[in-house]
Amino acid sequence: MSQTQPTSPLEIETVLDGQRVNDVLAALEAQDTTTLQDLLDPLHPADIADMMEQISDAQRADLMALWKGGIDGEVLSELDEGIRDDIIDAMEPQDLAEAVRELESDDVVDLIEDLEAPQAEAVLDALDDADRAVVEQSLSFPEDSAGRLMQREVAMAPDHWTVGQAIDHLRSRDDLPEQFYHMILVDPRLKPTGYVTLGRLLSSKRKVALADILEPSFRTIRAEDDEEEVAYAFNQYHLISAPVVDSDDRLVGVITIDDAMAVLDEEHEEDILRLAGVGEGSLTDRVVETTKRRFPWLAVNLVTSILASIVIAQFENTIATIVALAVLMPIVASMGGNAGTQSLTVAVRAMATKDLTASNVWRVIRREVLVGLVNGVIFAIVMGIVGVIWFGMPMLGVVLFLAMIINMVVAGLAGTVIPVILDKLKIDPALASGAFVTTVTDVVGFFAFLGLAAVLLL
Amino acid sequence: MSQTQPTSPLEIETVLDGQRVNDVLAALEAQDTTTLQDLLDPLHPADIADMMEQISDAQRADLMALWKGGIDGEVLSELDEGIRDDIIDAMEPQDLAEAVRELESDDVVDLIEDLEAPQAEAVLDALDDADRAVVEQSLSFPEDSAGRLMQREVAMAPDHWTVGQAIDHLRSRDDLPEQFYHMILVDPRLKPTGYVTLGRLLSSKRKVALADILEPSFRTIRAEDDEEEVAYAFNQYHLISAPVVDSDDRLVGVITIDDAMAVLDEEHEEDILRLAGVGEGSLTDRVVETTKRRFPWLAVNLVTSILASIVIAQFENTIATIVALAVLMPIVASMGGNAGTQSLTVAVRAMATKDLTASNVWRVIRREVLVGLVNGVIFAIVMGIVGVIWFGMPMLGVVLFLAMIINMVVAGLAGTVIPVILDKLKIDPALASGAFVTTVTDVVGFFAFLGLAAVLLL
Repeated sequence: MSQTQPTSPLEIETVLDGQRVNDVLAALEAQDTTTLQDLLDPLHPADIADMMEQISDAQRADLMALWKGGIDGEVLSELDEGIRDDIIDAMEPQDLAEAVRELESDDVVDLIEDLEAPQAEAVLDALDDADRAVVEQSLSFPEDSAGRLMQREVAMAPDHWTVGQAIDHLRSRDDLPEQFYHMILVDPRLKPTGYVTLGRLLSSKRKVALADILEPSFRTIRAEDDEEEVAYAFNQYHLISAPVVDSDDRLVGVITIDDAMAVLDEEHEEDILRLAGVGEGSLTDRVVETTKRRFPWLAVNLVTSILASIVIAQFENTIATIVALAVLMPIVASMGGNAGTQSLTVAVRAMATKDLTASNVWRVIRREVLVGLVNGVIFAIVMGIVGVIWFGMPMLGVVLFLAMIINMVVAGLAGTVIPVILDKLKIDPALASGAFVTTVTDVVGFFAFLGLAAVLLL
Repeated sequence: MSQTQPTSPLEIETVLDGQRVNDVLAALEAQDTTTLQDLLDPLHPADIADMMEQISDAQRADLMALWKGGIDGEVLSELDEGIRDDIIDAMEPQDLAEAVRELESDDVVDLIEDLEAPQAEAVLDALDDADRAVVEQSLSFPEDSAGRLMQREVAMAPDHWTVGQAIDHLRSRDDLPEQFYHMILVDPRLKPTGYVTLGRLLSSKRKVALADILEPSFRTIRAEDDEEEVAYAFNQYHLISAPVVDSDDRLVGVITIDDAMAVLDEEHEEDILRLAGVGEGSLTDRVVETTKRRFPWLAVNLVTSILASIVIAQFENTIATIVALAVLMPIVASMGGNAGTQSLTVAVRAMATKDLTASNVWRVIRREVLVGLVNGVIFAIVMGIVGVIWFGMPMLGVVLFLAMIINMVVAGLAGTVIPVILDKLKIDPALASGAFVTTVTDVVGFFAFLGLAAVLLL
């Protein structure tokens, strides 16, 4: 088989590993264009993009100079925003035009929406008029909407056709999407009425009516739907492709699962980074950008930890009398913070997957509080004993015991209630909950521990 | 169109919302089987499963009693492990057998691997001998491997065939997978040599050789590969389906993108929960299970916060002299902990997407340290001023300033180096890094602040 092919398909299985990156860097060093091409050509565009992201700015500039015309459209669409602008700037206009023209409309849209204005204009200029019109139409949909995600090329058929008519039609068309998995049936007003898998189409007799081999489940997506909803629907309902309709229910495009998977991946990345107070950003961002991005979160944390300090300051006299309190108080706050983060993460994740709803919110809150209570009691006993042994003061053990239970219960409560409230207020719970929850557990932890100490020990 | 169908396809677009859950609960209350069926029948199995997860144990038992035979195989495969065992226990053996027999082999495997032994045996018994053999063969592959994920039904063809031969073959077979998107070409020893999309097959003339319409990119997956690698490959290389081969390179099955998307979603969930110290677990877990699961993480945190307390204890005399130190010290530790978590999350995420490698690890570490330094200096100035104003001690401001810078730099360093080291040691960095990083920032934060205070203020 493989002899009849220009390149054996199995050779394309080359993956990017550390060895290959080193070899590329060595070829760059030696200014050896042939070796460089041999190393890069068999790589998938996604791997080439990854490699460009992993090398330094200087190495990347060398690579661009030595590997003229090597960056194609697919590599461009795989690149991190952080360095894509730079690379487009460094490309010759005719190389850019060629790279962009080979992309499908949805990939061009995806490329353009992250570019700075001058580069976006350069890319648009590289398209021919018809493609440019399609791309600009997609860009007219709101950012992060299904309209931006969809591809415009659709395999469709009138819903009264037979299998034979559909197959003849497919054979005659030359503007079919590169990859498609379903044929969408439409009524005379272009409203989708169902779809047929290509597998069913292929394995059915020519005179069978398409209407008789429809898939049982069928969902359409509105062009203005948020892409997060689209990813959720694909994952929840195991969709492979879904027709996109405009406000008049007319078919305007199709979204396929590979795009939905990419969105799901991005949404997860966003959630994970937001929960950690990082916001967006990637590994290729420079120091200044990264510093700026993380600054606001640290500023919020500074304010909340000053709040905690103000609570401590109210008990300066108590601490001056019993210094052991200063030694032990971070334990109470830290355990509460950890338990709160646990509850919070479970709640944020459950809201993202629509598993936490009005139907079960009270049951979940009750569970989190109970879990906080049970773990609170266990650790309260341990810490009570540690307090007694370490400092030889039985009442200090009692104070630790009580403060720990209070803070762990509050942690379970705050960790669930705060994200639910933020969600009601239409604030992304992943974004802001962390700061609120640890503020609560710090303030309650210090206040309960030092307050009880002031009452019971002085 | 829709009149010719038993149910209009668009009616299936029903989604689960709070209203519907309430209606279901009302129908349960009223013991109204007809309304219950009308409410549940149009729902997608995934939504029925979600609803079962959101209602209470008692409500679920009522539902099972009233909606006899309603739980089919697809609902079972969508259910959370936490309640699936209970539901299988509550099902009549013949209902279970019927539910399981309608599933494809990979779904049965997915179902069985999470079940307790008696329920797993009940499911296996419900299968006919041929299906049972296929399922048991899949179960012989390691847990979380491609072999467990793949479906055994494959559309394949000898690699010397033409389009016409392939289509005739597909028309004649009745054991085709329910959904398939490619035809895999194999050589006489069953080794995959390439694949053809159904779209290309449909739109090509009958006498074209399959070898001439092969997809340019082609990747095989080994049955023993980890499913995490599989999900990565699908996402990275935009695969739709991929052939799975055994150790002799023979085709044994195929994995489709919808399964890979589910794995990607699970892996993300695992990462997010592990980073927060929650481990596995879901919203349907009971209090005892949840408490047990979170306990180890809290225990680790207790040990690390006691370590921090031991550091503080070394400076009891210093604190006794200047109580302001006890008020301010949590700020230094908290800022370091936050900055460390930021660096850590970026690093863990970048390792999961293979963006952080040996090629760029030093550059990333340098960047994180620099970011820590810049943000450290800014917050050190702010806190230095706060310290001076609040307590009227200039040298206290200096101590805060220096300790803050030290701890933020250490946070950037520890947040990147610790996950990299854990990864080298083959420990999941998401699992263990958090505890290590906050231990470092707590210990360094308290030590730097109190140590500098002891030297500069006493």
